[in-house]
Amino acid sequence: MSRVSIFRREHFNAAHRLFNPSWDDAKNQLVFGKCSNPNYHGHNYDLEVKITGETDPETGYVTDLKKLSNLIKDQVLSKFDHKNLNLDTPYFRHTNPTAENIAIVIYGILRSEIDSGLELKIRLYETERNFVEYPAGEGS
Amino acid sequence: MSRVSIFRREHFNAAHRLFNPSWDDAKNQLVFGKCSNPNYHGHNYDLEVKITGETDPETGYVTDLKKLSNLIKDQVLSKFDHKNLNLDTPYFRHTNPTAENIAIVIYGILRSEIDSGLELKIRLYETERNFVEYPAGEGS
Amino acid sequence: MSRVSIFRREHFNAAHRLFNPSWDDAKNQLVFGKCSNPNYHGHNYDLEVKITGETDPETGYVTDLKKLSNLIKDQVLSKFDHKNLNLDTPYFRHTNPTAENIAIVIYGILRSEIDSGLELKIRLYETERNFVEYPAGEGS
Amino acid sequence: MSRVSIFRREHFNAAHRLFNPSWDDAKNQLVFGKCSNPNYHGHNYDLEVKITGETDPETGYVTDLKKLSNLIKDQVLSKFDHKNLNLDTPYFRHTNPTAENIAIVIYGILRSEIDSGLELKIRLYETERNFVEYPAGEGS
Amino acid sequence: MSRVSIFRREHFNAAHRLFNPSWDDAKNQLVFGKCSNPNYHGHNYDLEVKITGETDPETGYVTDLKKLSNLIKDQVLSKFDHKNLNLDTPYFRHTNPTAENIAIVIYGILRSEIDSGLELKIRLYETERNFVEYPAGEGS
Amino acid sequence: MSRVSIFRREHFNAAHRLFNPSWDDAKNQLVFGKCSNPNYHGHNYDLEVKITGETDPETGYVTDLKKLSNLIKDQVLSKFDHKNLNLDTPYFRHTNPTAENIAIVIYGILRSEIDSGLELKIRLYETERNFVEYPAGEGS
Repeated sequence: MSRVSIFRREHFNAAHRLFNPSWDDAKNQLVFGKCSNPNYHGHNYDLEVKITGETDPETGYVTDLKKLSNLIKDQVLSKFDHKNLNLDTPYFRHTNPTAENIAIVIYGILRSEIDSGLELKIRLYETERNFVEYPAGEGS
Repeated sequence: MSRVSIFRREHFNAAHRLFNPSWDDAKNQLVFGKCSNPNYHGHNYDLEVKITGETDPETGYVTDLKKLSNLIKDQVLSKFDHKNLNLDTPYFRHTNPTAENIAIVIYGILRSEIDSGLELKIRLYETERNFVEYPAGEGS
Repeated sequence: MSRVSIFRREHFNAAHRLFNPSWDDAKNQLVFGKCSNPNYHGHNYDLEVKITGETDPETGYVTDLKKLSNLIKDQVLSKFDHKNLNLDTPYFRHTNPTAENIAIVIYGILRSEIDSGLELKIRLYETERNFVEYPAGEGS
Repeated sequence: MSRVSIFRREHFNAAHRLFNPSWDDAKNQLVFGKCSNPNYHGHNYDLEVKITGETDPETGYVTDLKKLSNLIKDQVLSKFDHKNLNLDTPYFRHTNPTAENIAIVIYGILRSEIDSGLELKIRLYETERNFVEYPAGEGS
Repeated sequence: MSRVSIFRREHFNAAHRLFNPSWDDAKNQLVFGKCSNPNYHGHNYDLEVKITGETDPETGYVTDLKKLSNLIKDQVLSKFDHKNLNLDTPYFRHTNPTAENIAIVIYGILRSEIDSGLELKIRLYETERNFVEYPAGEGS
Repeated sequence: MSRVSIFRREHFNAAHRLFNPSWDDAKNQLVFGKCSNPNYHGHNYDLEVKITGETDPETGYVTDLKKLSNLIKDQVLSKFDHKNLNLDTPYFRHTNPTAENIAIVIYGILRSEIDSGLELKIRLYETERNFVEYPAGEGS
């Protein structure tokens, strides 16, 4: 048996604004600048889900990428695609929807759906030039 | 002298919703589906501006791409980047911000800023898979 | 009203071999080289469908890209994705599945499904470096 | 001296089908779906070879990327490009040509050709959205 | 018979500076800015060659893309790749190596090598965001 | 608190030649081939800067990507963009400007500008097919 990492890339389009509700508007504007526009802006988010584990000797799969794609669609895209992350999801009422926090939320959603013997990592592209990974580092 | 087309690609991130104000919410939802989410969604828009004309024999330029880039930043990105297209710009109060209409609006903004002897065409990517060109066809 | 071109990009994965059945194996090998491997090879084809027409004043659409995407899935991807173009489709029994001919076939499939008042053009990427467009040129 | 990772990206086009010969056709179809089409389908595979080691103080290279490119062409592309992975190579007679297994096979081919003091990792893209890495994790 | 456009994409890496020898250094610096650095800068140029014509009924090709690729390598890449465009080629002694002029030069090199019944167009990417096409427009 | 990696991608265009000044021209030519062209060649370099650390509970940022972008522009792009790496910068007088060494130099420039509690990694693309990472491996 061999440990292999597999990756599935999916997409969603969403609106958001960066906003810390414990700060006043002036401080939010000072810290987050145009990313804190009260009327929101948006992104085409590219989501890469990485799963690491042993290949199954009968299938040659770590896990079936088609099933992983469907899981991401059911558990993540259905909640985030064409949504306002601040208003339309329960995750960012008290959490600022930075790329870092969106990746942590998606990790939390998927972690409980994936076999505990498999490692999970999330890479989220907010733009082609700004992206994040969670959790940092390699290894279980 | 030779007729050459030059292209400059720029980016902006914006929120929008598809909405025809002369229809009720049910019809907007029926026609535009999740693209009509009242809380907005968003995109990383990629904008390609194409200029066609003769090259200047002294510079070898159709037009200076650095100046074109600055023009797009000043006239388009400053108005659209990190904005809500429906709420934060004057262009989509009575016009639905489809990719088609955004391209037509950008054409209108830039046409008056560019030498009338040069042809202008706009390509706008709403996503990598959905994009539009205005005006259609080639030739003046 | 304004003439705008809209584009939708879709993907399919298929096997094929280049083969002229009126030639013997030696001539096929001579002309088509490794592309004529009798056991087939394959590609991730990227398909861009371009539609040109007037925008609808009520929707701001030339045509609904979601409906266009579904049409391409129903009429093209269902027949070509994860298929052997030579063996599993009726189109290439007597026609060599070059990128040129695949584009012509896809044009024929979609032309009858799309409003005759709209122009149609197909761009097909066999690889990132080899691609074709049909029909050639612009026009009305 | 400094440990640096270098990467070389190459491409090959191949046909394959997913198939476990110890199962009957019905089970292969059930598990692998359209990926098990008996007439094969295909992909443009993108192969990234990563080598990690100390830079040579005289050349500033970990290893000459031109030589690495030629090694990949001679040892991998010559065997896989424009081939049917199941029929035209010896590697997948008894091994299912999943992306995971293709990466493991390519690792095996290249490992013996590369200085044992250098680490090797393979990333294989079956499509832009489905890809794998072998071996998983970092560090020697 | 059907008119189809085919495209082949190739790459070269070169140094250049923008410079009009009939101007003094101050004016070159004023007009071309950092692009006129006397010690040169450089680019990964992406070259797309587009050929338009009828498909051959026997091959299904407009022209063999493998032969076109070899022609580009022999006639263009051999002269431009890993070269200083100003110093190492005869083309830019008296012509400023703007993207526009490089495209015109490549068109001139290839036009005489390609069947006069086929149309030719050059697209040259200096960067992902700056690119040009020559000749402008469609049609012969 | 959660450890997250964030990435910012920037670009610069530069000329260089590979050259070891302790070797004669013949040996430089033998080892580095066309990359040692005395008149230089060039690249569009893509630079990815990766920072790993805990997210700030108030901002949800590991570090502000806008500030990171400005830091890279001020400290790296201002020195390298539209420059000749061998002649116009102090870094490659006695060091061969291979991708490996350029990445090591950029790491050195940025390491002193970034909070010592944050990890730093550099990925540098010389072309889409040739790229490097420094330092190799994961973990602090």
